[in-house]
Amino acid sequence: MLSVNNLFADIPRELPEELIGEILRTETFRIERIVSRGQVSPPGFWYDQETDEWVLLVKGSASIGFSGGRTIALVPGDHLLIPRHVRHRIERTDPEGETVWLAVHFGLDGNNR
Amino acid sequence: MLSVNNLFADIPRELPEELIGEILRTETFRIERIVSRGQVSPPGFWYDQETDEWVLLVKGSASIGFSGGRTIALVPGDHLLIPRHVRHRIERTDPEGETVWLAVHFGLDGNNR
Repeated sequence: MLSVNNLFADIPRELPEELIGEILRTETFRIERIVSRGQVSPPGFWYDQETDEWVLLVKGSASIGFSGGRTIALVPGDHLLIPRHVRHRIERTDPEGETVWLAVHFGLDGNNR
Repeated sequence: MLSVNNLFADIPRELPEELIGEILRTETFRIERIVSRGQVSPPGFWYDQETDEWVLLVKGSASIGFSGGRTIALVPGDHLLIPRHVRHRIERTDPEGETVWLAVHFGLDGNNR
């Protein structure tokens, strides 16, 4: 019944795209692992999410840009809450190694699918 | 509005007890940081929780014992779901450095205080 997984396991050698995997889903939130290796948001693309997102950078490094011009650079251990509809984009992830994120999505009135 | 904190910051040099800090609380779950330095559960003590707990070992190392005799050793990146009322205890945390955990408590019918 008790099953241990590791955030740094099962990462393909080649990552043509960001890898998003669900770790846990309940009726009110879900936890995802996101693995990047140099991927960034496409030019002009902005996330504008229906749900709140708490994000932790576990390994690697990245920068998130926010509408209005602010950019936040993240190192391992850094975490922040991105409220719904706060427009943001991934400006940079480490091109040399994996960047591993933990994301918790929540807050769509008990339905965050 | 956007505020970045770091899981490895603000850890006192001396840790006479385990340090538990709330990172995020909603109506249905809460996220905690737990920092240990050699602390273990007292002899004979078992956690028997009313809520489900998803736990991630971010840094350091630890062992969790479960009733029935199973012990699980954890290294950084390891994560597992401990369902409510699964009795467990902390058998070991690294005595030499900090062990940093992320814990997500949830599932008490929308009220996990």
